[in-house]
Amino acid sequence: MIEDSQIETWVDRIDTELVRYFSKKDMSCNPLDRAMEYTLLAGGKRLRPLLTLLACEALGGDVETALPFSLASELLHTYSLVHDDLPCMDNDDMRRGKPTNHVIFGEANAILAGDALQAEAFAILADAPHSNLKPQRRVAIISELAAAVGRAGMVAGQVMDLEQEGKPIDLERLRLLHSRKTGCLLRFCIRLGGHLADADESGMEALTNYADAVGLLFQVVDDLLDEESSTEKLGKTAGKDAESNKATFPKLLGAPEAHAYADQLLDQALKALESFNGSSTRLGEIARFIRSREH
Amino acid sequence: MIEDSQIETWVDRIDTELVRYFSKKDMSCNPLDRAMEYTLLAGGKRLRPLLTLLACEALGGDVETALPFSLASELLHTYSLVHDDLPCMDNDDMRRGKPTNHVIFGEANAILAGDALQAEAFAILADAPHSNLKPQRRVAIISELAAAVGRAGMVAGQVMDLEQEGKPIDLERLRLLHSRKTGCLLRFCIRLGGHLADADESGMEALTNYADAVGLLFQVVDDLLDEESSTEKLGKTAGKDAESNKATFPKLLGAPEAHAYADQLLDQALKALESFNGSSTRLGEIARFIRSREH
Repeated sequence: MIEDSQIETWVDRIDTELVRYFSKKDMSCNPLDRAMEYTLLAGGKRLRPLLTLLACEALGGDVETALPFSLASELLHTYSLVHDDLPCMDNDDMRRGKPTNHVIFGEANAILAGDALQAEAFAILADAPHSNLKPQRRVAIISELAAAVGRAGMVAGQVMDLEQEGKPIDLERLRLLHSRKTGCLLRFCIRLGGHLADADESGMEALTNYADAVGLLFQVVDDLLDEESSTEKLGKTAGKDAESNKATFPKLLGAPEAHAYADQLLDQALKALESFNGSSTRLGEIARFIRSREH
Repeated sequence: MIEDSQIETWVDRIDTELVRYFSKKDMSCNPLDRAMEYTLLAGGKRLRPLLTLLACEALGGDVETALPFSLASELLHTYSLVHDDLPCMDNDDMRRGKPTNHVIFGEANAILAGDALQAEAFAILADAPHSNLKPQRRVAIISELAAAVGRAGMVAGQVMDLEQEGKPIDLERLRLLHSRKTGCLLRFCIRLGGHLADADESGMEALTNYADAVGLLFQVVDDLLDEESSTEKLGKTAGKDAESNKATFPKLLGAPEAHAYADQLLDQALKALESFNGSSTRLGEIARFIRSREH
């Protein structure tokens, strides 16, 4: 996805770890495990775990140790995709170029697979080994994930999204919606890397500023891609937002302004990295990639 | 529910804490918060938090400190009810004498309310204050909840339940199904009380033995009530299991044998409490209540 052999290596390692995670445990509940694996191992950019690894690297932590922890956000993200795709929500039947989970396994198993993926994300954070992570800091990590994805975080964002459909929305509220729906979890992933590297307060603050810019950037670009790209390139139904009367940044700002806003967010993200004195090159690369990605 | 003024007081305190938990936080996502509160505050026996408090008491811990922690399992249990009642699962439209969550709020909000309740349960365990709880032990608590409700626990039990409907099942598999579907979370609640009281290994083992007997007892009695009680008494549709061709203990064993099995499990539960030398009187009361309850 990006021309950096180290990043490519880590994305491969993340994929391998995800497969390993599912093979090492007792597969005693087959329909559930198959439904969980189906969407989790169906590809995807692995952006969230990658951000954890790169943030950990930028703060001088051990990336190898961070790897198992980084899977938690991919499980969490996958659960949210599986639930959001359900007929009573976004009613999507394509995802990552394949039929969505409920199309293959039925609605009940899709809901339950999502439920189990959420629980397993917390299991990973509680159980992954780390010789230098203070238990108090591990508790803080778990607390941050719970807050990021709970009733004031990701789920609240999805509820806002469903509620506001077809209604007028201003820019501030659209920003709040997305900071909840996707921003909170992205911020968690990036801060996780800092925690695992035992970052100090100023390091955590710089990561948080980077995360907030990148989270919004991600969404603005997503909206632009939905308008400007094709279903084939996206691997999911394009033009859906326009069709469904959903508020998007390009609709609210106009496409040229939305592009300018994305550029401004990229600048903010890169600026937040300045204090790292070069150890954060790859976080910068990822921000640029998020700005320029085509799917 | 039981003639013990201390137990009545604690059940009232649990109810008050649940209300307080929802009032103290920023209510910025109204439809979600209302859906979460609707089922959570719709009554219920509060058996799970109560078991935490009684286990904590039996091990000489501070019940007052345990109270906020004890809510986690009620949130978790409520999420599982909301999801299990969905049309694509058990398709129940009555619960605790009221229309089920999706009947009032729609399927999307019901699914999302369940999702948020799960996340909030983990938030409580990570955030509730406790001056003597070692962070390492708090991590162990979170790890136990994640395992109890994940793909080898509660969710796996629900999948097994849906899968086996209408198919022959033997006693061993029915026990496994229920130990996952309801037993794992009950065991967690009871062990949580021990953790919060800083119980040693032998104390935790005795609690676990009690929990395993009580968990199964709870289900056997549930099955018997479904066969023998009325919809009015239960506050949910009675006779549903018989009608839906679901395997139950009375169907597999015959009603008299199922009653004898329940008696035997009660004995096992009471025997597990013997090592506590009288400090566990109320855990014994609860076990007897579970055996004799009528709804």
